[in-house]
Amino acid sequence: MSLKVTVWHEYRHEHNNPVVAAMYPKGMHEAIAEFMRKSSDLEVATATLDEPEAGLTDERLKNTDVLVWWGHMAHADVTDLVVERVYNRVVRQGMGLVVLHSGHFSKIFKKLMGTTCDLKWRDTPGDREILWVTQPNHPIVQHVTDKIVLEKEEMYGEYFDIPEPESVFLISSFTGGEVFRSGCTWTRGNGKVVYFRPGHETFPSYHNPMVLKTIENAARWAAPTLPTVMPTFGKRDIGWVDAKE
Amino acid sequence: MSLKVTVWHEYRHEHNNPVVAAMYPKGMHEAIAEFMRKSSDLEVATATLDEPEAGLTDERLKNTDVLVWWGHMAHADVTDLVVERVYNRVVRQGMGLVVLHSGHFSKIFKKLMGTTCDLKWRDTPGDREILWVTQPNHPIVQHVTDKIVLEKEEMYGEYFDIPEPESVFLISSFTGGEVFRSGCTWTRGNGKVVYFRPGHETFPSYHNPMVLKTIENAARWAAPTLPTVMPTFGKRDIGWVDAKE
Amino acid sequence: MSLKVTVWHEYRHEHNNPVVAAMYPKGMHEAIAEFMRKSSDLEVATATLDEPEAGLTDERLKNTDVLVWWGHMAHADVTDLVVERVYNRVVRQGMGLVVLHSGHFSKIFKKLMGTTCDLKWRDTPGDREILWVTQPNHPIVQHVTDKIVLEKEEMYGEYFDIPEPESVFLISSFTGGEVFRSGCTWTRGNGKVVYFRPGHETFPSYHNPMVLKTIENAARWAAPTLPTVMPTFGKRDIGWVDAKE
Amino acid sequence: MSLKVTVWHEYRHEHNNPVVAAMYPKGMHEAIAEFMRKSSDLEVATATLDEPEAGLTDERLKNTDVLVWWGHMAHADVTDLVVERVYNRVVRQGMGLVVLHSGHFSKIFKKLMGTTCDLKWRDTPGDREILWVTQPNHPIVQHVTDKIVLEKEEMYGEYFDIPEPESVFLISSFTGGEVFRSGCTWTRGNGKVVYFRPGHETFPSYHNPMVLKTIENAARWAAPTLPTVMPTFGKRDIGWVDAKE
Repeated sequence: MSLKVTVWHEYRHEHNNPVVAAMYPKGMHEAIAEFMRKSSDLEVATATLDEPEAGLTDERLKNTDVLVWWGHMAHADVTDLVVERVYNRVVRQGMGLVVLHSGHFSKIFKKLMGTTCDLKWRDTPGDREILWVTQPNHPIVQHVTDKIVLEKEEMYGEYFDIPEPESVFLISSFTGGEVFRSGCTWTRGNGKVVYFRPGHETFPSYHNPMVLKTIENAARWAAPTLPTVMPTFGKRDIGWVDAKE
Repeated sequence: MSLKVTVWHEYRHEHNNPVVAAMYPKGMHEAIAEFMRKSSDLEVATATLDEPEAGLTDERLKNTDVLVWWGHMAHADVTDLVVERVYNRVVRQGMGLVVLHSGHFSKIFKKLMGTTCDLKWRDTPGDREILWVTQPNHPIVQHVTDKIVLEKEEMYGEYFDIPEPESVFLISSFTGGEVFRSGCTWTRGNGKVVYFRPGHETFPSYHNPMVLKTIENAARWAAPTLPTVMPTFGKRDIGWVDAKE
Repeated sequence: MSLKVTVWHEYRHEHNNPVVAAMYPKGMHEAIAEFMRKSSDLEVATATLDEPEAGLTDERLKNTDVLVWWGHMAHADVTDLVVERVYNRVVRQGMGLVVLHSGHFSKIFKKLMGTTCDLKWRDTPGDREILWVTQPNHPIVQHVTDKIVLEKEEMYGEYFDIPEPESVFLISSFTGGEVFRSGCTWTRGNGKVVYFRPGHETFPSYHNPMVLKTIENAARWAAPTLPTVMPTFGKRDIGWVDAKE
Repeated sequence: MSLKVTVWHEYRHEHNNPVVAAMYPKGMHEAIAEFMRKSSDLEVATATLDEPEAGLTDERLKNTDVLVWWGHMAHADVTDLVVERVYNRVVRQGMGLVVLHSGHFSKIFKKLMGTTCDLKWRDTPGDREILWVTQPNHPIVQHVTDKIVLEKEEMYGEYFDIPEPESVFLISSFTGGEVFRSGCTWTRGNGKVVYFRPGHETFPSYHNPMVLKTIENAARWAAPTLPTVMPTFGKRDIGWVDAKE
């Protein structure tokens, strides 16, 4: 049975910035989707902000086991209705969510985290980023010996205001000496949530096979482990255990 | 320097239900506040839903280091404006929040947790609840040898849909054989959050000195550790570390 | 590729106590092993204390991906040499370890935990134990709706002196009102460690299919995710990253 | 009531290496102890390896609430008897333990952690280390705005093989681009354990007031919260709760 992955992309920078358009001619979402389509057990779709209902109709979500999310300049243009729909699909029905880079400030990520998700950053010609494995056992980094090196990336630095993660599998350093928890996981209700830090729209991180493989592994890890309709929540007036067993 | 605690109470059951009115003639908030007022280093105020702005004006919050919260039947009557105000005071300015019992379903707790906060429950003549210490080192339970026994309480049972707590210092069992993570902590931004399970409005839990002392300890634990105006968030365009040191 | 599981059993009670011998005619290890042998992707062996080198020769461990451990009256008879061998196989080579019931006091578990592993207990005609799922997402409990009920078991109660687990997927209550963290996981070096509380030798817990399936799932979860010879530890005098990339 | 801190130091490098002797004329332990002696609520003693019983007699430990530990070249010269004594004082009686720098490979730290405690390192003329605050709420780093910068230190790099910490309050980067979890805490039985990464014996880290204040705060944080003789462990044959309350 294949895993249904939808890569959601704001898809605005490509239309506004020739550097980004040149780097990702079909959009960043397609760079990510194309990589995953090589795996025959993944069924990969895409969705973008300027489609009707931001591409995230009930039908689309019903056919999504794991949603990959990239947003940046247009977080505010995602309607609360769509955010609520994604939220419910995650916490109540167990859809996985993989949030990338500037998605840390998306409405859906902030809603799931319950705090500001703020961080330090610097937009320069590019820092060298090294992502170090801090949990060699973690399924998401089984393709990494001990680090991933990206020659040019945007710097994100601590303090990153996130709830204490259940696991931190990658920690980055940058040319300026900053550090960042770049690979983190949480559970929210029935759903699994991953944050993975790269890539800024003006750099080729989504052409890097180590980065792409990390996203694919994150999607596999975030796959629902429960049936789509969850039986254990919302039970009310349950009887005494003695009487029921 | 004293710690400023505000006990917030929905304060509706006392007006609607003679059993509750008899149990807590001045309201549950006063039962809690009176206990804490015995400590000269605590400055204890109360606030209730039917005061203007739910008693939680900017002025009141500015004078609150830790907010204790009890709500049940009227969660929906707390306006989003007030919720946003409390949320900002917690995550940005470090106010502590101690959520009691049915406050698990309050807007503010769900917003901070980022998930449903659902649970099993049973409203009966009353289960015996035993709360067992699972972290003997934890400051909140230094007054407890190994357990607190409450002869009559409402049952809450797992699965309790909360984000993985940073600590679980009490786990309850009930007459029906259910279990519940009854004492939990989280950090959200600059603020500390505690959940403590007892007490249902028809039972005398807030007359029990062990319960009251746990609430007081929770308030002390959740005291802000940062200056009121936090210097580390929202930094932008910071220079290179090399250049700045 | 099949997963190689070895079920290790002290195997003394069966020879000393006719009640246990009647309950488990081939020994508790065989009750567990027989269940797992039904899965064609598991390769299941057993080993017992009174075999040479406690059945845990270098050869046997080399052919073990996950070791299941039951011990009680004879913890002291497991030699330090064998303990060191198992320890190294876990932390350096990633062998999984599933510790059952009174194995909480085994040398190997205490060595991996780094604390006393003490707990409360009561040896009676038998408490009813209910094990409640506290992480519905956890792979080890995917076969459980919300609880497992065992009519007769030995009581284990908190405080259980273990290092803060990475996950607590089951919490038990007992007839006496006690609670216990009955399903816990940790990582130690390259190895994954599971503790699962049931079953006392005089009760039929290892004939209960829900219990047996939990042990099988725990073994699957604890499977090594790293190559047998781990490349990332013990690196010395590594060069500068700049120079090496 | 004052907090009794003992700073334990291997104290061999100062006798073998003139660079170290010049940097720390009275030994590293005295540099740390002198700083803490400025606080009138701390009662600070020192102990060194070449004193009888490594300076850690029963009498000395009985008068120690928190033990600070620095060792490097002579871990093997600390006898198992002394290690066992310190271990029991930590896990059974709640003495705090603050392990510094190369103490990560000490017998006592490895025994408490239950794994290899291995890491990457590079002994060069010195990396610049920046320690970033990752938990602004944590009491140990209340004196730090957002980072501590050390111009010259030995590099320690991930993967650091430690059990998942209960908190990571500092993460370092180094000139070579490596990262390291430099401030971590754990609980073991009744005792609290802190690891703090700086300082290598040939660098002046223990003359840096930010480093010294971090060690002092760590000692305060690790103070016992339980009575010296712990009442809750080792209970046996406890009665039924019903009968006892």
